[in-house]
Amino acid sequence: MTELRLDGRTNDQLRPVTFERGWSKQAEGSCLVSFGDTKVLCTASFTNGVPRWMTGKGKGWVTAEYSMLPRATNSRSDREAVKGKIGGRTHEISRLIGRSLRAVVDMKALGENTIVIDCDVLQADGGTRTAAITGAYVALADALEWGRANKFIAQKAVPLVDSIAAVSVGIIDGAPMLDLAYTEDVRAETDMNVVATGRGLFVEVQGTAEGAPFDRRELDSILDLALAGTAQLTEAQKAALA
Amino acid sequence: MTELRLDGRTNDQLRPVTFERGWSKQAEGSCLVSFGDTKVLCTASFTNGVPRWMTGKGKGWVTAEYSMLPRATNSRSDREAVKGKIGGRTHEISRLIGRSLRAVVDMKALGENTIVIDCDVLQADGGTRTAAITGAYVALADALEWGRANKFIAQKAVPLVDSIAAVSVGIIDGAPMLDLAYTEDVRAETDMNVVATGRGLFVEVQGTAEGAPFDRRELDSILDLALAGTAQLTEAQKAALA
Amino acid sequence: MTELRLDGRTNDQLRPVTFERGWSKQAEGSCLVSFGDTKVLCTASFTNGVPRWMTGKGKGWVTAEYSMLPRATNSRSDREAVKGKIGGRTHEISRLIGRSLRAVVDMKALGENTIVIDCDVLQADGGTRTAAITGAYVALADALEWGRANKFIAQKAVPLVDSIAAVSVGIIDGAPMLDLAYTEDVRAETDMNVVATGRGLFVEVQGTAEGAPFDRRELDSILDLALAGTAQLTEAQKAALA
Amino acid sequence: MTELRLDGRTNDQLRPVTFERGWSKQAEGSCLVSFGDTKVLCTASFTNGVPRWMTGKGKGWVTAEYSMLPRATNSRSDREAVKGKIGGRTHEISRLIGRSLRAVVDMKALGENTIVIDCDVLQADGGTRTAAITGAYVALADALEWGRANKFIAQKAVPLVDSIAAVSVGIIDGAPMLDLAYTEDVRAETDMNVVATGRGLFVEVQGTAEGAPFDRRELDSILDLALAGTAQLTEAQKAALA
Amino acid sequence: MTELRLDGRTNDQLRPVTFERGWSKQAEGSCLVSFGDTKVLCTASFTNGVPRWMTGKGKGWVTAEYSMLPRATNSRSDREAVKGKIGGRTHEISRLIGRSLRAVVDMKALGENTIVIDCDVLQADGGTRTAAITGAYVALADALEWGRANKFIAQKAVPLVDSIAAVSVGIIDGAPMLDLAYTEDVRAETDMNVVATGRGLFVEVQGTAEGAPFDRRELDSILDLALAGTAQLTEAQKAALA
Amino acid sequence: MTELRLDGRTNDQLRPVTFERGWSKQAEGSCLVSFGDTKVLCTASFTNGVPRWMTGKGKGWVTAEYSMLPRATNSRSDREAVKGKIGGRTHEISRLIGRSLRAVVDMKALGENTIVIDCDVLQADGGTRTAAITGAYVALADALEWGRANKFIAQKAVPLVDSIAAVSVGIIDGAPMLDLAYTEDVRAETDMNVVATGRGLFVEVQGTAEGAPFDRRELDSILDLALAGTAQLTEAQKAALA
Repeated sequence: MTELRLDGRTNDQLRPVTFERGWSKQAEGSCLVSFGDTKVLCTASFTNGVPRWMTGKGKGWVTAEYSMLPRATNSRSDREAVKGKIGGRTHEISRLIGRSLRAVVDMKALGENTIVIDCDVLQADGGTRTAAITGAYVALADALEWGRANKFIAQKAVPLVDSIAAVSVGIIDGAPMLDLAYTEDVRAETDMNVVATGRGLFVEVQGTAEGAPFDRRELDSILDLALAGTAQLTEAQKAALA
Repeated sequence: MTELRLDGRTNDQLRPVTFERGWSKQAEGSCLVSFGDTKVLCTASFTNGVPRWMTGKGKGWVTAEYSMLPRATNSRSDREAVKGKIGGRTHEISRLIGRSLRAVVDMKALGENTIVIDCDVLQADGGTRTAAITGAYVALADALEWGRANKFIAQKAVPLVDSIAAVSVGIIDGAPMLDLAYTEDVRAETDMNVVATGRGLFVEVQGTAEGAPFDRRELDSILDLALAGTAQLTEAQKAALA
Repeated sequence: MTELRLDGRTNDQLRPVTFERGWSKQAEGSCLVSFGDTKVLCTASFTNGVPRWMTGKGKGWVTAEYSMLPRATNSRSDREAVKGKIGGRTHEISRLIGRSLRAVVDMKALGENTIVIDCDVLQADGGTRTAAITGAYVALADALEWGRANKFIAQKAVPLVDSIAAVSVGIIDGAPMLDLAYTEDVRAETDMNVVATGRGLFVEVQGTAEGAPFDRRELDSILDLALAGTAQLTEAQKAALA
Repeated sequence: MTELRLDGRTNDQLRPVTFERGWSKQAEGSCLVSFGDTKVLCTASFTNGVPRWMTGKGKGWVTAEYSMLPRATNSRSDREAVKGKIGGRTHEISRLIGRSLRAVVDMKALGENTIVIDCDVLQADGGTRTAAITGAYVALADALEWGRANKFIAQKAVPLVDSIAAVSVGIIDGAPMLDLAYTEDVRAETDMNVVATGRGLFVEVQGTAEGAPFDRRELDSILDLALAGTAQLTEAQKAALA
Repeated sequence: MTELRLDGRTNDQLRPVTFERGWSKQAEGSCLVSFGDTKVLCTASFTNGVPRWMTGKGKGWVTAEYSMLPRATNSRSDREAVKGKIGGRTHEISRLIGRSLRAVVDMKALGENTIVIDCDVLQADGGTRTAAITGAYVALADALEWGRANKFIAQKAVPLVDSIAAVSVGIIDGAPMLDLAYTEDVRAETDMNVVATGRGLFVEVQGTAEGAPFDRRELDSILDLALAGTAQLTEAQKAALA
Repeated sequence: MTELRLDGRTNDQLRPVTFERGWSKQAEGSCLVSFGDTKVLCTASFTNGVPRWMTGKGKGWVTAEYSMLPRATNSRSDREAVKGKIGGRTHEISRLIGRSLRAVVDMKALGENTIVIDCDVLQADGGTRTAAITGAYVALADALEWGRANKFIAQKAVPLVDSIAAVSVGIIDGAPMLDLAYTEDVRAETDMNVVATGRGLFVEVQGTAEGAPFDRRELDSILDLALAGTAQLTEAQKAALA
């Protein structure tokens, strides 16, 4: 681990992480999160009430949509709105973000309120889904405070049971590596996204052998690295929300 | 004109205008433009070559797509990608931006290159289409310079024959007013968008009676106001590109 | 202006305009309008009641859809239904027709009734949108009479506050010209559609520099021509409805 | 059969049939056909060349699309373009028209040329598909003549091997009836569309028990009626094309 | 008729027909039907209640959807879900199956219950629509029994007024032939699908001249063959349901 | 682990697994796989050649599509073809199957050939994606043999570098459990799908906390169980292919 990565990081080091909390004047909660050059605008829209099929159960709902601007990436992609359909990758990530956030929300404590999270990638350099989850948590926390301040959530209710953060890990030339930038991501033999709570419990573990299949020892090494990474992100979230 | 507008402006005053040129690390040209609280990310993607049906004519192509993030506005809108179709308003504005930019590009001088402009509204407070055109011009200018620096455009070629800027004007309670914010826009009896070149010639004039129809004298008064506004925007563009 | 146009008209002359009122046995109001070889079938469908989101406000609604038969034009276009989406031009024109008609309807006087205007271009030779608006007004007027005769509109109510007509104007080889036929339209440097009321007030002014940008003096000259044109169309509508 | 039908016809009588040949100035062949109040605009668009997958086989192609204007019927239907998809009924009829016309075209004699038939129902009163087929034949014949006159079809080639016409028949209150108007169609126990050539041979026979199933004798009686009807339509087509 | 068909059948012989009743553990009624190598999985889903627009009329509803697995056929077809739209052929067959089944159901006796029939072709070798109808009847009969057993249908009600079966017939080299396999179907000059009730009455007769048009005598000969075929299928259905 | 599961299994026991190899007469490789009551028809379609963008690289391509029949499940779902779009879950699973199979294929050894895998769930009782992957491997192996037998793959080439199988594991009431049936799946706190090669290496690990987040020890316990399960499935695949 003596040799540094292209951007000068050690293998177990995160990229610089920033949160511009309250970026949007319109949304109840918002955060422009950066993981290095990856920038995602996360907004949390709070609505009193729930979809008709959930009415009367005394529970709320949290959902998420992810999208990438056409020129967030190095070469321009066609807009999904123009193509008239959402691609598989977009669907997959939207669902992942929604599940991850719901894992730390007590729907009873939220009450019959709906929060829609939008994560729009303005600039992409690897790790857009993990940045999105990590930033969306900050936007979500602010939207919940807004809901409390506006009396839609009971004063004593504790809708957030934990915090949530996510990071990517991978194996490159046999070495475990944290928070892959795009040029690292395309070289990785194995690529994993880990979503974990502030208490250090797993919510999602999604590992894929892009090159060679991986063994149990390799899996263990990147899981270790991931939990160390999400612990740091948890601290950064706390600082941002302080 | 002694009474000031809600945000303290006089009737013939623009909102603060800023251009963050080169906002995107990925695009050949880019600009985050603000007209007050309206913020639009404009990227210009330069590709060598033209669509097949244009090949061999020695001419280039410039096109544009406009979109709004779901929570750019005060209440969240559904994503067009999720609905599976582009709405009429989006289509209309995309076409307007494309026509406006093409009006100042010499396609022969551009050569067989394509520029796709993306204008994504990150935050909306009225005048998103006029901000988009005005900012897109800056992104376009940088993308053309990139094309020249990378030898895709001949050194002597002058693809930009003029600059282009746009502003909204309206009549509120009988008074002509420049650069309407959202709360003004909804109250306007007449609403007009004017696109003009740096030399002060019209490229587009789109006026609509939202409330009462307007007469020739009223039309004249807002056309005057609009040309004064685009002249100021032209200066701001020059400063940004200096 | 001594030289005549291809079809023998002077620059300030409309093409022959005809209205076949009541063309359709099915619709509450209908009109097959011709501006020269441009033929548009306009139907106005009257329904008692309004969309759910408007119920209980004591106001009505008027909306419009425009479409072109695939072989209305010189070469066949694919059907939008087959492509599975409405194009930007169609959207734009449908919205324009709807706004234009609503400008002369008092929604309170209409009461909770809905009128859907369909403008289907059977044959196109330039000016389809202006013919559509001009003919749709006749269909609308008849549908409103039907609504009154059938007691859906109060006897004393005056839902039509004015009449509405539209015409295209342009600048060709520097000369202002009224009501462009297709071969003229493709040659025009500037192309403008003007929608005006019977009283001579503007409802829409949409000018586009197709070739060179235009100056204020040129704009003034075509606005004059347009108002003269809509005044003649207003007379023709009156005669048709007499 | 002494009692007459609502519109005064005997059971074995067609409605008045008219063909306005050459209705469209744009299409190579066209015909506005009426079967009573059912009016269908049929255009035949002739293009030199065939789709890529057919190139080089020395054979042509004929295809058809059917559509109904939204207010062709007594109550307005939503446009398929707006809904974003073609309905089953439209698909079914488009395919039927295409097959029917291809049955009388010698594709070798047509050569590598494509004819697209568009049948747009302007007003509907039952029998729109049979009127469409019968009128489309006239438009097709004219488009083929255009192709010959323009040297795309060899002088000696005989692309039309027969003529084609179609009629609906049904059983109402036990009585076989020819060419059903809409009010008859909804009452029919059995409804059949028959497409036959000028020589009296069947191309399509599509019978459906809308009410009670039908027996062999009933089937025979309506087949007789249908062949008598198509024979009359064949004469009317000959007269129109003379 | 002395020469046998490719698979050893005489011209008036059906392929081996089997019904695997109750194939699905999930559906209220189900049947895997085979006509030779054509295999269709038919499920009947019983739901208490009807669509909103039918509520309160005391009548039920039966509808059907047909689809083919992408590799049911000799070469793979694209999935309609992937293409984002249902093809014309699929629409046509779904509608045919629905109409055929409704012809033998007394909707009053069914009561306010809905049955959705799904016919998914697992393997195709000609006659998929006729196998689908014939098998769907068995699934429908079981779903109706399930509805009765579960008290959604009154004990005395007789929702099935007859049975229904379907078979294809054709003319190959001038000879009438029953139940065409795929290789026969592509060679047939005329192709007809006949749907008939257990009592021998017609519900649908759909004949198409794929090659040469056919005359009345040929039509008669294949109608005879078809009724003989559906009579045998009716017996096989009875045996399966015994 | 003394208490047995609802279906009588121990916690570390698979459901009965069967492979009906060669189920389809049409596909180059096929397999109807069952994991208990979950039944998936897997076909592998072999085509000589690759998509245009891959031509000339000497490499092949393997892709997969997953779908569920509408009544595979306990209550009927709408068809994605009817809805006009593929859902997120379907997209996600199709991509997972494709990646999993590609992990064991040497694309150079496959040569410029394409294999499309279709996995259609005929009956669902939990674990449809793991059954699909496990069965698809058998279909793939047969399609590759077909390619070799038909000389599209070189005799010495070894396109399959390993075998691949998948299984679900979960934690229910704190206990790790193998191969969840549907009723178990809905109760699981944690749900994981593991795809592993015949050599016991991981290709995909996808774990989700459906209820409470899970800790590292729990993760380890289900990974152990999963590898034991895929080892048994590997044996079953070998037996089926013997």
